[in-house]
Amino acid sequence: MHKVVVVPDSFKGTMSSREICAIWEQAILNKFPACKVFSIPVADGGEGTVDCFRAFAGGRMVEAEVHDPFFQKITGRYLTLPDGKTAVIEVAAAIGLPLVEGREDPLKASSFGVGELLAHARRSGCTEFIIGLGGSCTNDAGAGMAAALGAKFTDGDGREFIPCGGDLNRVSGINIQALRALFSGCKVTAMCDVDNPLYGEGGAARMFGPQKGAKKSTVETLDRNLKIFAQAVRGSLGIDVSLLKGGGAAGGIGAGIFAFLGGRLTSGIDVVLDSVCFEEIISDADLIITGEGRIDEQSLRGKVVAGVAKRAQSSGKPVVAVVGDIEPGAQAAYDYGVTAIFSINKKAVPFETARRTSPEDLAFTADSILRLIQNFESRR
Amino acid sequence: MHKVVVVPDSFKGTMSSREICAIWEQAILNKFPACKVFSIPVADGGEGTVDCFRAFAGGRMVEAEVHDPFFQKITGRYLTLPDGKTAVIEVAAAIGLPLVEGREDPLKASSFGVGELLAHARRSGCTEFIIGLGGSCTNDAGAGMAAALGAKFTDGDGREFIPCGGDLNRVSGINIQALRALFSGCKVTAMCDVDNPLYGEGGAARMFGPQKGAKKSTVETLDRNLKIFAQAVRGSLGIDVSLLKGGGAAGGIGAGIFAFLGGRLTSGIDVVLDSVCFEEIISDADLIITGEGRIDEQSLRGKVVAGVAKRAQSSGKPVVAVVGDIEPGAQAAYDYGVTAIFSINKKAVPFETARRTSPEDLAFTADSILRLIQNFESRR
Repeated sequence: MHKVVVVPDSFKGTMSSREICAIWEQAILNKFPACKVFSIPVADGGEGTVDCFRAFAGGRMVEAEVHDPFFQKITGRYLTLPDGKTAVIEVAAAIGLPLVEGREDPLKASSFGVGELLAHARRSGCTEFIIGLGGSCTNDAGAGMAAALGAKFTDGDGREFIPCGGDLNRVSGINIQALRALFSGCKVTAMCDVDNPLYGEGGAARMFGPQKGAKKSTVETLDRNLKIFAQAVRGSLGIDVSLLKGGGAAGGIGAGIFAFLGGRLTSGIDVVLDSVCFEEIISDADLIITGEGRIDEQSLRGKVVAGVAKRAQSSGKPVVAVVGDIEPGAQAAYDYGVTAIFSINKKAVPFETARRTSPEDLAFTADSILRLIQNFESRR
Repeated sequence: MHKVVVVPDSFKGTMSSREICAIWEQAILNKFPACKVFSIPVADGGEGTVDCFRAFAGGRMVEAEVHDPFFQKITGRYLTLPDGKTAVIEVAAAIGLPLVEGREDPLKASSFGVGELLAHARRSGCTEFIIGLGGSCTNDAGAGMAAALGAKFTDGDGREFIPCGGDLNRVSGINIQALRALFSGCKVTAMCDVDNPLYGEGGAARMFGPQKGAKKSTVETLDRNLKIFAQAVRGSLGIDVSLLKGGGAAGGIGAGIFAFLGGRLTSGIDVVLDSVCFEEIISDADLIITGEGRIDEQSLRGKVVAGVAKRAQSSGKPVVAVVGDIEPGAQAAYDYGVTAIFSINKKAVPFETARRTSPEDLAFTADSILRLIQNFESRR
């Protein structure tokens, strides 16, 4: 083999996608010392997204003074890619749950700092923005973010304020002229691996509120406020976010990016594959390796293995998925162009035991697959 | 692929080697409908050995009236191969532990019936004998077997008797002239997958006595008697079985086959591979599949995967081992010519859970391997 492209998701709870890439690189070079290995550790939009992009694309880290969810000053970071025009920002850098550990309060937490990161990148000349939506502590539908970018939110008395989860319901007027001017001609893409709508049964508050510290009654308040805010958005901007898939991502920042910034919500894997020009990269590859922590029938929407396979299918290149657990129905991945699926499980032991040896188990499985390929290649 | 040879051991506690072969056949024909599949379900010498030989070699079952371990009449069965001259006999057919369930008594149990099966086959014209040594309830060093074939054992007073585990120590003279005449020019091979010597620390009584119903003091008696009997064998026949590897198999029948019948003790896998002319069968194969319930550093002596790999190595054919558990050190199998090792474990769950799905897990793993091979073959 002359070139292998490795593009795995992380195995949740055991290995990051960067660790997985490193294990594959080693295994490939052991068997095929002259082989080019192109590694694309896949980010899911959460913490580590910037690191993943930096690992495969390079670029430069930029620091910016911003405000945390409770308006304390902190230093945020984002990445500018080597093209000089694309910024990769993870919301967790300004409003990640770990930043407010023990002080969680989704009624008061604001996404203002995310807007500041965007503003900093925009003013530095960036025109394309990739925003990772995972791990936020807010539930403000991105209103704080928009405010930091120049949007004006006013209450029934015409008084301007920065809405947060607890008072989104007070918004009566929204003016985003300045924001739209700032982002005119720009392209904003959010990495979004959830389908959840802004509010309601599967909405941001009900699905993710509890893990952000919301008790039952708070969840109801947050959910009601998101619904009222969506009506205000429709009234002021003529944009309906009520049914938007992924609108509930990152406490509603998904909906905010769509409504205020005109951004697209895209699955993380597609954003990553777009940003590396995946089709071009695989055009001279002999093999594509992908994987995720577990593969099942549900894996086929937006997840990494199916996303990679779909985009590799027309190339006719073999796509081998090496995963943690293989669940019933995983064979459906073959219809998406996956060539073969292997589990790294080497022994019948429970997960708590298996996770301890997952790096060596992956290395062993990778080696076996490569040994088999090497044998059949050598007989050509 | 045009031809695949499938030669797996059973997965103890989950699937017989015949079931495993059937799953592979199905998987191979699904992907390569025109492929010839040559299945060799491997027997280990225990119960099922005859069925395995019959599955890959054909032949005819023969019934014979013989005596059970306590001299009750039973119907024993053995196989004659299509060559008309080879008999495949498992000792379990006459003296298997299940035959005496609840009546175990290794002091009194005799291997006489095994001798009767051999005699029946010899008198029917067989000149080659394959004897599976697994699962016996006896501890008589094959003295009963020899007696049934015409050997004469005498005590200190010159009185003839048929020794069993409890009175082997009384043997003072042994005459095997009649037996040797009966088996002149014959070839006897015992399938023997254990290294245990006749007596002592790792000997027949200490290692296998307890599972045959021997209490601690009985074990000591049995062990002492085996040692004394070995001295009588050396005294009368000039044959030393004291250090013979595998002499302790089947309650010492291993030693008896060596001393009385001039037989060879050979690992089960080698007997099987010899009997199918393995080297010839694989000469036009594209792939050899093997496997066992678990592979580890210890797997390399006499076990199926290593046995298959060693004999396939000079052919240069790929040998893929598909196993239950892969233990540390399994990579050593690569030095024996194994191409790649895959586990059928698809999920991190304990054995008690995994065993329930092992047939479908094997089918899935087989399918994945064949899909990968198919892809790389199609690109030639």
